[in-house]
Amino acid sequence: MIKVAVNGYGTIGKRVADAVSAQPDMEIVGVSKTRPSAEAVIAGKRGYPLYIADISKKADFESAGIAIAGSVEEMIQAADIVVDATPGGIGAKNRELYEKYGKMAIWQGGEAHDVAGFSFSSSCNFDDAKGRTFARVVSCNTTGLCRIIKLADDAFGVEKVRATMVRRGADPGDSKRGPVDAIVLNPVTIPSHHGPDLQTVLPEIDIVTTALVVPTTFMHMHILQMDLKETGDRDKILEMIKNHSRIGLIKGFTGIKSTAGLKEYASDLGRPRSDLWESCVFEDSVSIVDDKELYLFQAIHQEADVVVENVDCIRAMAGDDITAAESIALTDRSLNFEAI
Amino acid sequence: MIKVAVNGYGTIGKRVADAVSAQPDMEIVGVSKTRPSAEAVIAGKRGYPLYIADISKKADFESAGIAIAGSVEEMIQAADIVVDATPGGIGAKNRELYEKYGKMAIWQGGEAHDVAGFSFSSSCNFDDAKGRTFARVVSCNTTGLCRIIKLADDAFGVEKVRATMVRRGADPGDSKRGPVDAIVLNPVTIPSHHGPDLQTVLPEIDIVTTALVVPTTFMHMHILQMDLKETGDRDKILEMIKNHSRIGLIKGFTGIKSTAGLKEYASDLGRPRSDLWESCVFEDSVSIVDDKELYLFQAIHQEADVVVENVDCIRAMAGDDITAAESIALTDRSLNFEAI
Amino acid sequence: MIKVAVNGYGTIGKRVADAVSAQPDMEIVGVSKTRPSAEAVIAGKRGYPLYIADISKKADFESAGIAIAGSVEEMIQAADIVVDATPGGIGAKNRELYEKYGKMAIWQGGEAHDVAGFSFSSSCNFDDAKGRTFARVVSCNTTGLCRIIKLADDAFGVEKVRATMVRRGADPGDSKRGPVDAIVLNPVTIPSHHGPDLQTVLPEIDIVTTALVVPTTFMHMHILQMDLKETGDRDKILEMIKNHSRIGLIKGFTGIKSTAGLKEYASDLGRPRSDLWESCVFEDSVSIVDDKELYLFQAIHQEADVVVENVDCIRAMAGDDITAAESIALTDRSLNFEAI
Amino acid sequence: MIKVAVNGYGTIGKRVADAVSAQPDMEIVGVSKTRPSAEAVIAGKRGYPLYIADISKKADFESAGIAIAGSVEEMIQAADIVVDATPGGIGAKNRELYEKYGKMAIWQGGEAHDVAGFSFSSSCNFDDAKGRTFARVVSCNTTGLCRIIKLADDAFGVEKVRATMVRRGADPGDSKRGPVDAIVLNPVTIPSHHGPDLQTVLPEIDIVTTALVVPTTFMHMHILQMDLKETGDRDKILEMIKNHSRIGLIKGFTGIKSTAGLKEYASDLGRPRSDLWESCVFEDSVSIVDDKELYLFQAIHQEADVVVENVDCIRAMAGDDITAAESIALTDRSLNFEAI
Repeated sequence: MIKVAVNGYGTIGKRVADAVSAQPDMEIVGVSKTRPSAEAVIAGKRGYPLYIADISKKADFESAGIAIAGSVEEMIQAADIVVDATPGGIGAKNRELYEKYGKMAIWQGGEAHDVAGFSFSSSCNFDDAKGRTFARVVSCNTTGLCRIIKLADDAFGVEKVRATMVRRGADPGDSKRGPVDAIVLNPVTIPSHHGPDLQTVLPEIDIVTTALVVPTTFMHMHILQMDLKETGDRDKILEMIKNHSRIGLIKGFTGIKSTAGLKEYASDLGRPRSDLWESCVFEDSVSIVDDKELYLFQAIHQEADVVVENVDCIRAMAGDDITAAESIALTDRSLNFEAI
Repeated sequence: MIKVAVNGYGTIGKRVADAVSAQPDMEIVGVSKTRPSAEAVIAGKRGYPLYIADISKKADFESAGIAIAGSVEEMIQAADIVVDATPGGIGAKNRELYEKYGKMAIWQGGEAHDVAGFSFSSSCNFDDAKGRTFARVVSCNTTGLCRIIKLADDAFGVEKVRATMVRRGADPGDSKRGPVDAIVLNPVTIPSHHGPDLQTVLPEIDIVTTALVVPTTFMHMHILQMDLKETGDRDKILEMIKNHSRIGLIKGFTGIKSTAGLKEYASDLGRPRSDLWESCVFEDSVSIVDDKELYLFQAIHQEADVVVENVDCIRAMAGDDITAAESIALTDRSLNFEAI
Repeated sequence: MIKVAVNGYGTIGKRVADAVSAQPDMEIVGVSKTRPSAEAVIAGKRGYPLYIADISKKADFESAGIAIAGSVEEMIQAADIVVDATPGGIGAKNRELYEKYGKMAIWQGGEAHDVAGFSFSSSCNFDDAKGRTFARVVSCNTTGLCRIIKLADDAFGVEKVRATMVRRGADPGDSKRGPVDAIVLNPVTIPSHHGPDLQTVLPEIDIVTTALVVPTTFMHMHILQMDLKETGDRDKILEMIKNHSRIGLIKGFTGIKSTAGLKEYASDLGRPRSDLWESCVFEDSVSIVDDKELYLFQAIHQEADVVVENVDCIRAMAGDDITAAESIALTDRSLNFEAI
Repeated sequence: MIKVAVNGYGTIGKRVADAVSAQPDMEIVGVSKTRPSAEAVIAGKRGYPLYIADISKKADFESAGIAIAGSVEEMIQAADIVVDATPGGIGAKNRELYEKYGKMAIWQGGEAHDVAGFSFSSSCNFDDAKGRTFARVVSCNTTGLCRIIKLADDAFGVEKVRATMVRRGADPGDSKRGPVDAIVLNPVTIPSHHGPDLQTVLPEIDIVTTALVVPTTFMHMHILQMDLKETGDRDKILEMIKNHSRIGLIKGFTGIKSTAGLKEYASDLGRPRSDLWESCVFEDSVSIVDDKELYLFQAIHQEADVVVENVDCIRAMAGDDITAAESIALTDRSLNFEAI
């Protein structure tokens, strides 16, 4: 059993903890929180030992009826590997702590590539994670780009990618961030940083990205265009998507045309927290234009797609020797993650 | 086993079907849909026989891989009782059909009281439903008002109620309705229809209501003020809320201050579809002002609170003789519905 | 000519500057800004001398083509009176500066009553501002409450007020603040601070307020209920509203039922920045219930209603002796502010 | 004086009426409305004779204090040219009426090209409108595409255009349409119809477009990528944009990064109804990638950019012989339309 600690039990951390718990070869030895909250209550209900960074706040938790197992440093010592899901920028400061106790660690895409020196995508470079002490699972957007671009590259060769990310403004549980009624260029400059981020995983891909933020709470939408090296074949790519366990194909007859429709479907399917771990490609959007240009829309659930990647990354770094396909299958099966 | 058909497998219907399926004394004999859709696929995955109003559309469903069991009329004949969850206004037209086959039927709050001649609330008039052929479960807002007003009336006597309903603009899966950026008076006139609707269940209550619509998708928020007959006691009412199985008390230490926070909590709790079947009263808002005025905020999940009421109503009308408390307990236990 | 400086040329400050400029007895001697921006460009186009707090940033402005007249301290010295429209909380720190140069100053409602020791509303206590060195114009919500409650009190006597403020989440030009999709209790506790704030102007009024925030950008909506001392008369109150220069009556035949409709109407009327300086009472909502209860909806443009109050307050403090009615009429006439 | 009637005094119609009124060579002989409303009141305040389609409703208007000049047929007879700004799809049915009275007519982009057989853009084909009886001003999005693509084509030759339109969900005054919290693919299929629509004006351009709808109310955002025939030159294109009277360049130092910031700026500039008649290109976004690819963001005010095009189209069809440059300059000067 791989002993996993989740440092930062928030939007991503709580999902990773549940996904790790569901694996036959992993267990949660602790999760951390900085102050009493609804999420701290949930950790208790799930039976995850709860650790806190500032042990002087123990009484605050206990007066709210939440048991504390110890300090974050104690949690790290109890683990084989730490998944750092603290807010962007804070994770980098924790590296010293993980080094101090000689623990493996995985950061999220909110941290820079340099924090780990290696960026991970289950579909692209699973084997490269083996033997490493540190890794970074790329962001939700980059994860979604990696999956589909790798697939297209395998199919026809990709000459160049142009992608626009229309991003959600705030997570569903966040009532502070906006915008309320605006389309925000983020950044105004072109290209955005998403292209170089993809290249930390797929360095050969020529890509230009643009990004905007809009007033929605669930899922980013990608508009993707790829110049192909060979003539594209729509049926072939649809078939490859159907066979890709981390990309879902949204059929036209479902009538789903929006992120709202997707979320409702995930909810109806009984997915925990309505999570969509897969990239969602809209079948009717997949088009070959002028023989060698592939177009498509895909929606990315910002809270969920990296969760399964974290599980695979843990297994690659801390588990028995296993192939990417085997790990992905095991991760998915343990979560009852079936094709959408 | 009570044989239940759900006519209209949409936002409410699909939830009622799942809740009915979970009961030990009920079974779903069929659900209906008018055209192929993601929800029709879900009905298939759940194993609910799918019936259609216009049998000539059978081929449309089958070409999408969705099996059809027959016509809506056939479904009705197979049932002991029909839950009509068709869109508001359509349900009334179906009454003739239910009468034709001599079936019991339950409508939703989108229909007028007169369609059934009896309006139902589990917490208020369970016994009055016994022996009836037709009933109407009141709307989500009225259900939420019934629960808390009945409780306050039992506690201190209610002289007068003033309530404002700040309503969500569209359901989460609906991407057509607005508003996008407006507060809409709906209606502009005061009082709104919600007061008279409450009086179909609690005719003695003197109530004035106002209602607005805002650009959110989950939960209505009620601002409630009640003039009490006796001096109010905050501790007493908090205790009664804690003991009420259909009203949840949101504690201050959770940090939950919004509908977004509530929904996240429901999602973390693993509730199916993140449903909040209970009214959610914010503990910190419960206030006694000038001895005899009770104030509080409560949030109402528009898709969910009536679901458990439908189940109780089915049992009152078509089940063995049972008390309200027994039915509510059985309904809740079967859904693993525990206090939030 | 009263020499007016506007410290803080943002949402409120830029509107006050334009309104002051339009008055025959006032002139703008300077406005201040902390960094180059679109608003700084506008100040230049309007011909307002632009001063900056940190004179070391002068080059930043000039490289953007924006001329700087000097430091904020120099601006204050050039003025008879300063309107402080800096962000909430910062204004209090500026008091020392105004005292240092012996200048009169007016703060906004984001500051506490104590910063000035006197809170102002044109319709309620114009004369009390005369001879004062410091005053605070109450917030947009409190201004709106003052106007209508004073009017109702004059008409029938007000025994008690219960008011709910449904507030906009962010100003139209703000793309950072949320919420995106939530109703936020702000505060969760009841009553909110708005009641005591009203009492800084109208200390005799018994009032309980509640407040929420929703994802809209223009106008707050008030749901008001007042217990009257005498039997209410709907025609009388409508007539008084029609005759009140700072309260507009939105007629039913206009079809306006929302803040969106109001804003469109203001825009069509050619109002600068689509500003609604008046409180907007919806005629069809004005109701007398049970003889002695008055109900109504009013919408408050958060960026605009205090602008005209600032102008009156300047005149009361720094102008020739004049009545409230004369000042209000002069302010409004100078702005071409006619009944909506 | 060209006698202009505006059939359909709504979002576009009321703006065209004001723009026409401001021209020295045109006058409004009438506008039409179907029912009493705030906009009908505005028509009266502007002094536009108001005509109605169904003369039997005259009393409804008059009881609301709105004077009626006659029927729509009478209005058409009084005009030299009719601007049809009725809701999309209705305009086509009016063609018969314009033919009956032998009047020139201009439709909006909500109608198909075939209704007029000629599609107009001031910057592209002004002269082609001369001598025509019927024309259609292309939609706001197509107008924005025409302007910038024509400019890039003139500068470097355009080999191919790829454009994504992120569209607002509802107009600011509309509180019915959504979405509230969703990104909607509209259409799901790729390419969207916008490319072929552009080709009604610029038939030689090879273009692929995609389109989504998001929950905002003002301005569409375009992400544009063009393959150029010659090596691009950023300075040259910036210079050309600065010199284009219908394209504004949003400078970086303004800090404007969103549609909200743009709208605030238009409002501060004192533009009527905060209208942005120009396409707004973000200077910092204009990029040349790999020598021959031009990228940029531009925002399009859906209510405004076609207004000035309608004025030019009227002049081309019904005015004295004049060049495009002369008409554009006259239109803009009459509106005090200066570079943003």
